[in-house]
Amino acid sequence: METIGDEASLSLSPDGTVYALPTETEARIAFAEIARSAREQRAKGRRTVVVQGLGFVGAAVAAVIANATDEQGRPLYYVIGVDLPSAASYWKVGKVRDGLPPVDSVDAQLAQLTYRAVHTHGNLNATTCEEAFALADVIIVDVQLDARLPAPDSEISVDLDGFTRAIRTIGRTMLPDALVLVETTVPVGTCESVVQPVLRDERRARGIDSPALVAHAYERVMPGPRYVDSIRAYPRVFSGVDERSSRAAREFLSTYVRPAEGTALWELESPTDSELAKLLENSYRATNIAFIHEWTLLAESIGINLFTTIEAIKARQGTHDNIRYPGFGVGGYCLTKDSLLAQWGATNLLGSDVLLGMSLDGLRINAQMPLHTARLVAEASGGRPDVTVAVCGISYLPGVADTRDSPSEILVDHLLARGASVRLHDPIVDAWPERPQLAVSRTLDEALRGVDGVVFAVPHVEYRELAPASLIESVGRDAFVVDAQNVITDTTAEELHASGWRILGVGKGHWRKRGFQLLSA
Amino acid sequence: METIGDEASLSLSPDGTVYALPTETEARIAFAEIARSAREQRAKGRRTVVVQGLGFVGAAVAAVIANATDEQGRPLYYVIGVDLPSAASYWKVGKVRDGLPPVDSVDAQLAQLTYRAVHTHGNLNATTCEEAFALADVIIVDVQLDARLPAPDSEISVDLDGFTRAIRTIGRTMLPDALVLVETTVPVGTCESVVQPVLRDERRARGIDSPALVAHAYERVMPGPRYVDSIRAYPRVFSGVDERSSRAAREFLSTYVRPAEGTALWELESPTDSELAKLLENSYRATNIAFIHEWTLLAESIGINLFTTIEAIKARQGTHDNIRYPGFGVGGYCLTKDSLLAQWGATNLLGSDVLLGMSLDGLRINAQMPLHTARLVAEASGGRPDVTVAVCGISYLPGVADTRDSPSEILVDHLLARGASVRLHDPIVDAWPERPQLAVSRTLDEALRGVDGVVFAVPHVEYRELAPASLIESVGRDAFVVDAQNVITDTTAEELHASGWRILGVGKGHWRKRGFQLLSA
Repeated sequence: METIGDEASLSLSPDGTVYALPTETEARIAFAEIARSAREQRAKGRRTVVVQGLGFVGAAVAAVIANATDEQGRPLYYVIGVDLPSAASYWKVGKVRDGLPPVDSVDAQLAQLTYRAVHTHGNLNATTCEEAFALADVIIVDVQLDARLPAPDSEISVDLDGFTRAIRTIGRTMLPDALVLVETTVPVGTCESVVQPVLRDERRARGIDSPALVAHAYERVMPGPRYVDSIRAYPRVFSGVDERSSRAAREFLSTYVRPAEGTALWELESPTDSELAKLLENSYRATNIAFIHEWTLLAESIGINLFTTIEAIKARQGTHDNIRYPGFGVGGYCLTKDSLLAQWGATNLLGSDVLLGMSLDGLRINAQMPLHTARLVAEASGGRPDVTVAVCGISYLPGVADTRDSPSEILVDHLLARGASVRLHDPIVDAWPERPQLAVSRTLDEALRGVDGVVFAVPHVEYRELAPASLIESVGRDAFVVDAQNVITDTTAEELHASGWRILGVGKGHWRKRGFQLLSA
Repeated sequence: METIGDEASLSLSPDGTVYALPTETEARIAFAEIARSAREQRAKGRRTVVVQGLGFVGAAVAAVIANATDEQGRPLYYVIGVDLPSAASYWKVGKVRDGLPPVDSVDAQLAQLTYRAVHTHGNLNATTCEEAFALADVIIVDVQLDARLPAPDSEISVDLDGFTRAIRTIGRTMLPDALVLVETTVPVGTCESVVQPVLRDERRARGIDSPALVAHAYERVMPGPRYVDSIRAYPRVFSGVDERSSRAAREFLSTYVRPAEGTALWELESPTDSELAKLLENSYRATNIAFIHEWTLLAESIGINLFTTIEAIKARQGTHDNIRYPGFGVGGYCLTKDSLLAQWGATNLLGSDVLLGMSLDGLRINAQMPLHTARLVAEASGGRPDVTVAVCGISYLPGVADTRDSPSEILVDHLLARGASVRLHDPIVDAWPERPQLAVSRTLDEALRGVDGVVFAVPHVEYRELAPASLIESVGRDAFVVDAQNVITDTTAEELHASGWRILGVGKGHWRKRGFQLLSA
């Protein structure tokens, strides 16, 4: 029998809080309470929403829906989050039960909404018991579904097993007329070719012959300061597998999606259209980043300041204001994989022979981007492999603590493989979940002390506001800077170079034209 | 001696007006008058602007500048247009001298501004005499510079000879302190590597040792109803080769560039930056079109309506509102070639080894786009090559009469080569300058009568408003429609299909899902 203290019975959250995995009995006792609450709340006219998966999207969606109210300000729903009873996942359930968001965010609203729902309204709880689905009027699927960029000329591989298991779990207990709303970004064709048949089989085994209500409606949730608002305030695209499903999805979404202006809900012809919309939306962004990367390399090679050039182009409103700036690479959970899900689904679920050549090229180019910064580091260090480099920034967006698929991963792995020593710093990330063996310096000063060079990999405000004198003092010797994110102004670059530093920058061809990459005379 | 009536001494404008080429004596007499006017106007405080090249850009620029006024409404400039004394070009000079724009435009402002400048203000004239440059305070270069997409694995070839000759002509007569403002879209590096040395050599030969004032400032002129406004109202990007040149360019441009809001003039660090900005701006647009093309093919193969899908994506303002719709192809003078000029200039003028892979792929994809429509035609006609097809639309934009590099060219050439008969129609194009051997039907009814199929290649409003009954009546038999430009609504498609027609559409996967490509049962 497991006891508290066993490794296997503990679930450690990223902030260090330890949650003891409940025994099955404990979980059932806790769930019985939840089921009672759901019934009580239903008596008050509140429908029950179960959110499957308390990750980055699900945790915020659960908090937002629990805070949806009628015109009198009364909560509309009783919300139950469900996640797995594993060491890797249970802490999320524990957090929510404590009234804390299981996601670290700079948006204070998330913690407020979670606290209010759990402690004030008492209409948000979490469990590992799959019987929760039997209570639901609406089941929101926010489970993870991964894909990795394959090696050149290899097949894309997408593992649908976890996702399919999650859907099967729902089918085993769901009410006949519950709506299954898939928010997970899935390969095109998944709702019609995977979700529907799996639910049909499970329901038939239970003697339910009516087709399940299924819809796809993707989130546009963004990390950062508008995390919660990005769930409520962005227009939503959706489609049901049939008219009843579409109507149910529309009714549900319209209770909490409230953009400041414009149409809130965009209904497409089939869930495949909605699945594709999400994948296309992110692929567009990823391809536009890849496009700028090749112009970045060109600009550096011919002495052009691509930042001011693009600023001037952006002045052309309406057609060019979303053109991207040069940068360090692409991170996060969506842009790095969504073209793969489109290609894989089209080929394997829907029998298409069309190849998304440019989009897949874009993913490859983006994955290579941090290696361009690595080349600038090699150039700045005169080819010496055994240098000590401070990498400033390990998240994938400024002001955001999210480190998933951060491009710093690729740079740091490369530098270490090449024999360099790496110091890490990030003003808002204390530990790097994806590289737990690497320590993150507590202060910037500690990270910089005595290094041969500095890479600015994320344009956190702390780096943009760093005075050159303070940088020089922290390092304490002549060094190099590789500015991969337009952190260093021309004036600072000039000052550093005049002090004997070498400066290179991504997209900063004009620095090269001025000789900043050389030792000053 | 040439007499009027000789082929060689006549210049035929596209609207059929014939201009007799002046003899050298006639040209000199006419020019003497222009020179006298310039002196008179200079006495009134008006500076002289000479526009080299009266094509699509130069003709409009000349009219706009001639209509630039001071705060009291008095013209600021005396403007002289210069073009070549050849049969192919002289008619443009003749038109301007008659007070008529040498470009056919739906924007009535162009004709008004040209008329007013020539007949009311008397401050716009045109000549073939290169001595005009000797009168200029500002010389605007708007000559053509072409590049063609090379065959796969061939080198890009750009012929700079015509452009270089034009610059040399300026250098032979220009005043020492005149500003040469290059507006032509040129390979990166052209101002610094071609224009400056050519002018330096010509000026030195004349004993002028001071460097010429040279700047690059690209136009964002757009065909269509806002043709004239696109010159005055878009913000402008520019840079001189040195501070004096930049200052002169800024002073000049600020007298007539007036966007409704925001910064009017964006100064970059060097003319190379400005040259690149233009090429990047257009390459971004062209690549975004190519990107959507591969999703168009995917959407068609898996039954998706990509138009409603993209409409839903566009609702995401700020990042996605400029995403493109599926279409027929890319035409016009810029998007089809500008990435080539960037690559060629970087490689050949500036010694870069960077390859713009994605941008060049984009050009190739776009050039292939009309062949996808050709494939739909082949499918709809059951593979029969000897069909009669009405191609509706030969310009490259709706509501615009411009046929330069129109994608209809590629489709029509392909259909003819395949053995089809082609009827042509366009509500605003009476003759097709690029395919003079092909007749354009006078009416849509004439073009449609008895054809096997119809291709909608341009979304002119006349086609979008065509009632299905009227289409059926004109054709007079069961036929097929290939809608390459979202001209046909779903209701019309359904109606046509119910009447026994086959309907296919670019990006209209849902039509295929509904079986519209098949004969109705």
